Parts: sequence; C-alpha cells; structure tokens
Amino acid sequence: MFFFLAPIILGAQELKSPDKELKLNFSLKEGKPQYELSFKGETVIEPSLLGFELKGFSLKEGFEIDSFQNTSRDTIWNPVWGEESEIRNSYNELLVKLIQTESNKKINLRFRLFNDGLGFRYEFPIQQNLKHFVVENELTEFNLTGDHKAFWIPADYDSNEYSYTTSKLSEVDAWKDPTISFGTNEVNRPDQYAVKTPLMLKTDENIYLNIHEAALVDYPVMELHLDKNGFQLESKLAPDVLGNKAYLRTPFRTPWRTIIVSDKAEDILASKLILNLNEPSKIEDESWIKPMKYMGVWWEMQIGKSTWNYTDDLDKKTEDGKLIPNNKHAANTNNVKRYIDFASKNGIEGLLVEGWNIGWEEWLSGQEENFDFVTPYPDFDLQEITAYASQKNVKMIMHNETGASASNYDRKMDTAYAIMNKFEYPAVKTGYVGSVIPRGEHHDGQWMVQHFLRSIKKAADHKVMINIHEAVRPTGLHRTWPNFVSSESARGNEWNAFSTGSAPEHETILPFTRMIGGPMDYTPGIFKLKNYAPGDPDRQMHSTLAKQLALYITIYSPIQMAADLPENYENHMDAFQFIKDVAVDWDHTYILEAEPGDYVSIARKAKGKDEWYVGAITDENERSARIAFDFLPEKKKFVATIYEDGTDANWKNNPESYNIRKVIVDSKSTLKQKLAPGGGVAISIKEATKDEIKSHKRI
Amino acid sequence: MFFFLAPIILGAQELKSPDKELKLNFSLKEGKPQYELSFKGETVIEPSLLGFELKGFSLKEGFEIDSFQNTSRDTIWNPVWGEESEIRNSYNELLVKLIQTESNKKINLRFRLFNDGLGFRYEFPIQQNLKHFVVENELTEFNLTGDHKAFWIPADYDSNEYSYTTSKLSEVDAWKDPTISFGTNEVNRPDQYAVKTPLMLKTDENIYLNIHEAALVDYPVMELHLDKNGFQLESKLAPDVLGNKAYLRTPFRTPWRTIIVSDKAEDILASKLILNLNEPSKIEDESWIKPMKYMGVWWEMQIGKSTWNYTDDLDKKTEDGKLIPNNKHAANTNNVKRYIDFASKNGIEGLLVEGWNIGWEEWLSGQEENFDFVTPYPDFDLQEITAYASQKNVKMIMHNETGASASNYDRKMDTAYAIMNKFEYPAVKTGYVGSVIPRGEHHDGQWMVQHFLRSIKKAADHKVMINIHEAVRPTGLHRTWPNFVSSESARGNEWNAFSTGSAPEHETILPFTRMIGGPMDYTPGIFKLKNYAPGDPDRQMHSTLAKQLALYITIYSPIQMAADLPENYENHMDAFQFIKDVAVDWDHTYILEAEPGDYVSIARKAKGKDEWYVGAITDENERSARIAFDFLPEKKKFVATIYEDGTDANWKNNPESYNIRKVIVDSKSTLKQKLAPGGGVAISIKEATKDEIKSHKRI
Repeated sequence: MFFFLAPIILGAQELKSPDKELKLNFSLKEGKPQYELSFKGETVIEPSLLGFELKGFSLKEGFEIDSFQNTSRDTIWNPVWGEESEIRNSYNELLVKLIQTESNKKINLRFRLFNDGLGFRYEFPIQQNLKHFVVENELTEFNLTGDHKAFWIPADYDSNEYSYTTSKLSEVDAWKDPTISFGTNEVNRPDQYAVKTPLMLKTDENIYLNIHEAALVDYPVMELHLDKNGFQLESKLAPDVLGNKAYLRTPFRTPWRTIIVSDKAEDILASKLILNLNEPSKIEDESWIKPMKYMGVWWEMQIGKSTWNYTDDLDKKTEDGKLIPNNKHAANTNNVKRYIDFASKNGIEGLLVEGWNIGWEEWLSGQEENFDFVTPYPDFDLQEITAYASQKNVKMIMHNETGASASNYDRKMDTAYAIMNKFEYPAVKTGYVGSVIPRGEHHDGQWMVQHFLRSIKKAADHKVMINIHEAVRPTGLHRTWPNFVSSESARGNEWNAFSTGSAPEHETILPFTRMIGGPMDYTPGIFKLKNYAPGDPDRQMHSTLAKQLALYITIYSPIQMAADLPENYENHMDAFQFIKDVAVDWDHTYILEAEPGDYVSIARKAKGKDEWYVGAITDENERSARIAFDFLPEKKKFVATIYEDGTDANWKNNPESYNIRKVIVDSKSTLKQKLAPGGGVAISIKEATKDEIKSHKRI
Repeated sequence: MFFFLAPIILGAQELKSPDKELKLNFSLKEGKPQYELSFKGETVIEPSLLGFELKGFSLKEGFEIDSFQNTSRDTIWNPVWGEESEIRNSYNELLVKLIQTESNKKINLRFRLFNDGLGFRYEFPIQQNLKHFVVENELTEFNLTGDHKAFWIPADYDSNEYSYTTSKLSEVDAWKDPTISFGTNEVNRPDQYAVKTPLMLKTDENIYLNIHEAALVDYPVMELHLDKNGFQLESKLAPDVLGNKAYLRTPFRTPWRTIIVSDKAEDILASKLILNLNEPSKIEDESWIKPMKYMGVWWEMQIGKSTWNYTDDLDKKTEDGKLIPNNKHAANTNNVKRYIDFASKNGIEGLLVEGWNIGWEEWLSGQEENFDFVTPYPDFDLQEITAYASQKNVKMIMHNETGASASNYDRKMDTAYAIMNKFEYPAVKTGYVGSVIPRGEHHDGQWMVQHFLRSIKKAADHKVMINIHEAVRPTGLHRTWPNFVSSESARGNEWNAFSTGSAPEHETILPFTRMIGGPMDYTPGIFKLKNYAPGDPDRQMHSTLAKQLALYITIYSPIQMAADLPENYENHMDAFQFIKDVAVDWDHTYILEAEPGDYVSIARKAKGKDEWYVGAITDENERSARIAFDFLPEKKKFVATIYEDGTDANWKNNPESYNIRKVIVDSKSTLKQKLAPGGGVAISIKEATKDEIKSHKRI
C-alpha cells in the first residue's frame, strides 16, 4: 500500500554554489539551528551553531522551521571606482524562517552561497513579541577542521594597528604583544584567545579560508574567540560601556558573516564577495567622487622633523597675550606653499595638511573639547593657502583629527563641513587616536560603528570624500557610500618607519586580511629609507625603494598618497615618474601570484586607458617573481618601464638602490624578475611606438 | 630685650561679614586647610576640612600658606529679569593661597562673606606641576552643630522629582522611597545617607541654614553625604560612567559652595547670595529676552485625555504605507488652534505644544536616535499653525524632548534651532526623561552639566529662551545666561496631579530648597482639581483653586504657565482674571511670612508698573495669614482684589470653592486672611479710583 506524501518541512536543507563546488547544509539539531560547509567534497566548516543571548531571554534553541525559501541571482554592477569596472554578483540563496515555539518569537537566517564563499546573516522581522531588544551575545560558531595556519592580530576593541602573527591556531595568544590602544588588556583585549577579522587561515590541505563580515551597520564589530580544544571559533561582539553589545529594534538585519574559500590564494584576493553583500550606492549624484593622488604635510611630523602643535606651552604667552611659537610647526603658510608647488609641478592632485588647526598641544589629554575643527593656527593663512592652491590647480584635503573624542566631533561636524564647502575642500581625512569619548565606549563598539557611518553620511551630504584613520576595519561599506574612499584601520606605513616597525612580510599579509574589507590609506612612496629621522639614526623603513613603488599596485586604494617629502623626491625624480604615472582607478585587476606572508604580484588596467601597471613584492626573502603578461591585448607591442631593485639592494643595508629599464613586451611575454630581500618591482606599460620597438629590447 | 618682629604669615585668618554678624575662621591644622563659621557669636559650622583626592595624588594635606589677600566689594547690578530690579552685591573676601610643599602644587581658596551667608570655592591656578587632572573626590566638609531639622530629598544622580521629607538629620534615609529615576539604588542613589542640595536646615536654636552651590559649570553636582555620628556633611560629587568625577585643566575654579544663614526664615527666601556669586550676563543684546505667560497643549496628555504619540503601533501601516492614527493625538492642527484662540482672546502670550514631532511612540525604548526635532506628525501643520498663531498674536513655544538621549540632541541642535528661527519660536522647552545617553552618564554628572550649558549657549546663539525639564537643579546660572529663563528640576505640579502626588506642604518647602538656585517652571493654575482624569476618579490635585492662583507669586519664574485646559478655565473666568492680570517680572519682592513646610506669603511689585500682587499659601493645615500692606506707597488708596478660599473650601473634598472680593487698602492696612487646609490666597492691587474708594469697603 502506498501513502500520498504531503509536502512537509524537513529540518534540514542543502544549498550549492552556482559552480556546485561549495555546499552548505543547514539543519535544526534538537531545536538548535546549525550549518556546515564543504568545498570540493571536503568539509571546511563542521556543524556550527547559530543563535543569540538577548537581555532577558535567548534565541538559540527551541526552534521549529516555519519555511525554507530558495532564490538565485546573477547580475553585473558597476562601482563608482574600484579594482574592476564591472562586478558579477552570482549566488544561490536559502532563507530559513525559524520560530521559537514557546516564546512565539521569529528569527530568519539568510545564506548566500557564491562560487568564492558563503555569506549569512540573521534577520529579526517585525513581530508582536519582539520590538526593542538588547544583544548580550551573538553565538555564531565557525567550527574548523583542524589546527590551521593563521594570520592574525589580537582582538583589541580599540586598535587594528598590530603586526600580524603567523602561527598555528593552537599558538594564538592575544596577550603576547604589548597593547597598542590606549588602555589595558582588561579594558581593550580582555580575551587572551580572541582574534580580529578578517582572519586568514590555511589548512594543511592547502585550502584557504578567510572569515570576516560584510555591511557592518548599527552593530558592533565581530571578533572571534578561539576554543583551542576543538578549533572552534565563536563570534565575540565588542561591548559598550555597560557590557551590552547592541541596542536593536525590529526589523533588523545583522551584518553578513562571511567565509571566503578557495584552494588558490589568488582567488582570495580576487573575491568580490564582501562588496556583493553590501547594498548598492545610496548617493544619487556621484559625479564629485574622484579618485586621486595626494601629498601631505605629514611625514615630516612622523619622522620628528617638525610638529603638529604650534607652541610647546599653552600656559606661556607674550606680553600682548599671544602664544609663543615653537618654530617647528609644519603647517605654516610658507611650508604649505612649498608642497603645493611640488604637487602642482608634478601633477599630484591633492594636498593634505595636518596640524593646521588649534588644539594639538594637548589633544590627548582626556578633555572632550579638544578641537574645534575650524580655527587655524596663527601661522596658517587659510584664505591665502586656499587661493594659492586653487591658482596652482591643487586641491586641499581637510584634516579633522578628533583624538577619539567622537562626541565632540559629532557636535561640530556641521561647522567642520561648512568650512570644507566654503573653501572647496573635496576630501577630508579624519582620525581617532586615543581612548574614545563618550568615555568607556570602544572604537569597535556599536556606538562608534554608528558614529563612523554618521561621519560618512555627513560627508556625503556635503559632497566631501572621507578617509578615516583609526576607524573600525572596513566591511565593504564603500559600495553603499562610495564617498568613503579609504581608511587606515591597520598598521600603516608610518609604523614601518620606526626601526621597530613592521616586518617586510607585513605588506604581503595585508591584502589577505585588512584589505578584504576595503581600500587602505597605507601612504606608500617613501624614498628616503634611512637617516631620515633627525637625531635617531637607527630608524629605517623595512622596504626597498622599488617596493615602495610596487605598493601603489599591491595595496589598493582610490586615493594614494605620495608620502615622502618634496626634497626627498627631488633626489629621485626618475623613480618618482612611476608615482606621477600610476593610475588610481581601474578597469581590471589580475592577481598574478600570491601567498600570504610571502609575496603578492598584481597587474591592473587603468580605467578608460590603455595603460597597465604591475606591482610585485616579497617578504624578507629574495624572490624571483614570474610575471606573465597574458593580461595584455593580443598582437600588440608595449613598452614596459621596470622600476626594479638594484642588484645589490636589500631592505636592511641598501634600500635605496634601484634601477629603471624599458623593455618591449606582448601578451605572450613572461618576465622573471628578481626581487631583493624586502624588495619589489613596479612596472608601467603603454603601447609602444615604432621608435620604441626599435630602440628597446624585447623581454 | 626686645625683638623686632618681621611680618610673618600666620596659619589662621578671620573674616567678618559687612554687618559683622557672620564670622569665618580659616586655619591650617597640621597642614590641612579648614574653616568654621559663626552667626551672632554662635558656631553654625564647626571646623571643617577642605581638599581633594585627584587621580594619582591628593590635595588635602601637607600645605603651607603662601599668602592671604583681603578685599571688599559693594555694588549694585540690574538683572534682565527677576524678583528685584536692583540687586546689591556686598561682601568681604579672603583669598588663601596654599602650596603643597612636597609636590610643589598650588591651590587657592576664595571665601566671600555676605550678610546673608558664605560662599567659597577652590581655584587651581596655572602651574608647571598641575595641568590636566581627574577629580576622584572633593573632600569639602560642612560639620554641623547638632541633629538639625532637615528638609531633604535623596541624592539621586538622575532625578530631583522627589517629595521632600522633613526629619531630623539622624532620621535621613535616602532609600526609604522608591527610586524615581530610571535605574536602581545601586546605579542612581548608591549612598543611603546622602541628600541633595539645596539642603534646608533649622537648628534647635531656630537658626536657618541653607547649603547649596553657585555657578555650577564644567563640574558635577555636589550632593551631601551625612555622617550621622557627628552630623558631618561631606561633598559627594556625581560620578561619570567610569566612576571619575571631573576632568579638569588648570586654570579651573570650582562652583561656589554656599551656606545661607539667618535667624529669620524670610531672609533665606530674600537672599541673593547665589546670584551674586554667579558671573554677570554674557549675552550682549538681551532685548529679545522677555518674560511671559503661556499655555500648553500638555495638561491634557498628563491627565490621560490624549496622547503625545500619533499612532499606537509603528509596525502597522495602511495599504498605502501610512501610519494608523490613534485619534487621541493632542498636537493636531485643529486642537492647537483652539488653544491659540483661547490664549489670544485672554492675552496669554505663548503656547507650548508637546508631541508635535515624530518619535513619541517609542521614545523611552533605549534607542539613541529617538527624535529628530524637526519632523512634525502628519496631523500637525507647522506652516499653518505658525501663520495662525502669528495672526492671532500668540508666540509658539518649541518643544524638544530628548528622552535623555543628550548625545542625539547634541548632534541635532543646529537643525533644531534653525527651525525655531525659521518659524520664529522665541522659546523652547527641553526635556530629559529617562536614562542618559551617552550610556552610563548621569543627569548630575559633569558631562550632563556641560551638555545643559551647551544647550543654553546654543539657544543664546539663536536668540531663543530656554526652559529645561529634568535638568540639573539650578545654581544661579540664569544671571550669566538670562535666556535660561526657567527649569523644572523638582517635583512639579504634574506630580501633584496624581492622587499619590505631592502633599499640600510641598509648595511651602520648594522656595527653601529647589528655588534657592533659580526659577522653577512649576506649571500652576489648575482649576479643575478633581474628576479630570478620564477613567481615574481617584486622582485629584492637592490644592485649592485659590492656592493655584497664589502659586503665581510664591513660585517665582519669569515664564509662568496657565496649565489647565481652556474648557476648564471657561468655567471660572472670574478667577482666571487673576492669571490674566498677574505680572511675571518684578521691581521688588517682599517676603511677608514664611516657614518651611508650613506657609509662605510673598508680595511683589510689577516691573515698571504701579501694581502689586500677593500670594499666600499654607500646608495641609488651615491658617490665618497676616498680610501687612506696608510695602505699598504711603498716603494712597488701592483696590485689592482678593481671590480667597471659599469658607467651606479644603483641598481634599472641596477644592474648587473660592470667593472673589474687592477691598480698599493702604500702606497701613493689615489683612487677616483665612487659608483653607491646602489652600491659599491671591491678591491683585492697583491704585483705586474715586468711584472704587466709594463702592468698596476698607479692609
């Protein structure tokens, strides 16, 4: 006898990526939701629980399935700027609607499976029994299959500016390095076994996994607690001052939790999963958003040649009540004009000036009212400088350091942006060094996540591009807010300047970690690599000069600084030619070779131009990079100008040795290029004239 | 043999008030600064220590005297508005400069002795060894001479809206009543033996002492911890979220600590010590600051007849996406016009409308972004209402409830004030109900003290008068910022509306406590005293109708509300005549009779007019008030219109019984006026015409 089987809702469901290589399984295990993930038939995430502890109740068990919904999508979209001018968004989706039967509360899980990985998020729909609620803990697990190699930094709630440690997961120790943020382990990184995302992992089977999040809005940063027994990772949200994680109201959707997966390291760098999981642009008129290169009255303060502050003692005044200048203040009208002259002469579009406004003498003293963002120091003539820059065709970039007194900046943004508009500054760099005010809040907490987005929206309202330093690390929000052109949120080149700075491998890890979420204002282009710091001969950069050029390609950003001093560039104008030439916006990007911690080689086609640029870098080891030019159009000849390490170059003792040569290449060419220890190579490529074909060697 | 004695600095110094009745002694006792105070030869404050615990060090001992400086001052100044049009500021001053020898740190103590009391403050001058510092505790003592009678409320960091308890100091228990602020004892009033200031005390020898502070700027509220063993009071500063009290930078001056002293209760109410210790006005053009009477679309929500919110469910919408109105929303265009009509017809200058702007459905849900302060509900036509009010010569008063999300208001003040200017609102009422955001901060902490002053300054920048509810209790700052016309900061008439509200004695205590620091927006004038709350017949006011009129005199404010509904006034237009007539700004004030907790009788002369108004109130006991009219000019006859309790009136069973009569009085007249239990009397006085002299009886 046969029974007619009515369609019933089963407690489990499978989802495959469009290319069928990734497979997600969702199930309810005794009322608890869980997922697992496999790649090419091998498990990469073992069954992992999902849920929440909320104030007064939990949403982690006692669930039944209300429904499953499957959808698919395959579209193309065009970013305003980026590494690609077209991005494909192709995924299969599973929406799981859950009901906690006893409480009659609903929660949805949305899984999107791409060829390059998985994204999933929690959704709290509008419902009678859940309106306002407070998140105490998110219980998302990422249960790994073994003791993978990890590239990690500690889960510090207030800083991302750590060197990466490469170790087995079993060797993770978030307390081994001194704390970098203003605070103590107790305050800023209470968990000895927690790390930040993006977390880059490599299995013994050479599978690459990258765990991060996308579209972090109105929610704290997800950090990852590691249980070393089973190599289980669990989400750990940055708390607010009361220990709560988030204050929410239905309907609410959490950020996407993301796992990029491949057996090729290059695919991790090529992934557009994070961007695809963000919302389309909310800016209607995007015409004013323009990638650019810029210089800065900045490095000279970093190296100790001059100061941000105008006086050394605010309590001392002249007889007529004026401050006594220390005569080392960088942001003075004459010095700024010198930078404008250099930038103008060399086609660098923008100039940032730090230390132009009052407040730098005691900006980290713990006072909330530290800056007003509108009053220049007496030696900085805002009117005159703006007029001079305009006449020389250089755009001034505003600087608003907040000292992390975000509540103070919140109150003054309106006036700060009014002055930018008045003096036609197209961009602003903001900074958040120090302990956050409102006191007890963290850079990674919900409050600051909301603050950073407020600043981005305020900038958009005023048609100003924004570049945030000491921000929460990015999660692809620049798709939604393309005026958010860059951020720091990692250990930048300024750290590499100190003799105890970053190891040469640092820039080979950044693309696999920090940069998974978005562009970085790394500030490359230092040419004077030793003996730059007055009175501190031990300081040196951990890089060759050629590597500094390569970073313009390997570290992606639509704004790129030429970070060194004009006088240092004057000594190497042949090498500076690459910085003058290099594009900052791209049609296509080709990840040629990459291995986290070892090397990265990338080629990019300039947007709307038949120009290509290649950057390749290595860690502390010499390397022979293999650069295949098959990204070039067929049947044409090109001149490649190669900015390479000198034969005797190395980052430690001879960093400024470089060589420039031109060769003819075509799409069939391959270059074997030697990179010095801590070195790199930068190549610019243009179609060759007949004369050039005659006068230069083929590769 | 004789020695020539060089002038040496002694460790003690005496200071006398101009009338020599008060005497202050300052001394260093084993390196610790202390003061004592006597009145007419009797000690009122026993030797009391002064000092600080600062983060990392203390400033409480190890001092030497650097110098003493004595000065005197006797001047007259004129407030923009007030109880007097001229105020005399007369004091003797002692400045004590101290050095903590071991640390080489300096601190000054400035004592000002007036005839009516003492003010003293700490000053941290500019110095090499003390710039930025954090206050952990202020150690100011007020050591009393015995177990005085006290009129007190608990030291709740977030609320002043308690009923006053009258008890011996030994009976103080700050935990005996339920907490009123949003929080727990642990959070809001952790100290069981701490009370708020102004603290009114009466000794067994009938000396009245009032302890408070003046000019609270950039510093937390001082509350008083009571040590019952020796009846010692010690300053207890409201903490921030981290437990710190204040973040300071030299030069800094604390608020003044004040002790008003007299053997007559009336002198306590007449004291201008607090105002004299504040800075002169910082507003250059004060022409736009004008006292006024106003009505409000407000009481109808308090009594439950209508609502602030527009809909009862934000999650439900019509098919075309609109909110579903609850049809009880008070701030709708037609209803507002009804109030405008009444105010216009009866010469009431202003109209407050609460609940006009979106956000009231979930304003206390703990979300920071609760209001935007500019978007009206769909049924409130801002343009139409403004035009209608202007045509009817009524000034609209803006309402900005913040739900205590002060950080949200900080960000939006610029737009909030822009709309007030655009629609020509001359005044704003702000409110701070709820737990403060930034989370963990307190209404009484340094952060909120700074916020309230920011809001006052922002209002001044926009030429808007401000009336703050749930503010820190005042300390005379309205001298410096006369646009700060009033505040609530105590249990207002709205509490008296509940059947469990305030006792009839409440208004006899307020002038001795809350009002020592400045005017109160008490919202008097309720005429329907029972059966006003739909569905809640037990509710009633704790007052007679005549007492409601008397409050316009006994509770001083330059803005006074006629708080009841137009339809309730329509029933008693003869009594409403007093509200129409009564002035809100004064040349002179005469405290006729007063005893805290029992009765208050005050007469005032209207500013620039030959009109006088008298208010007298009693507690729950019937009383015969003695009103001597010797404040009137001699040799003239006046008509006094007396609004008195009906012979059978009492607050409990017959509150609306009143009688109006006219009599002829002159400066020699005395009125024996019966006040009903919970009752009062209000009198308006104008020069009598010959006809009136004929037609009315002499007193």
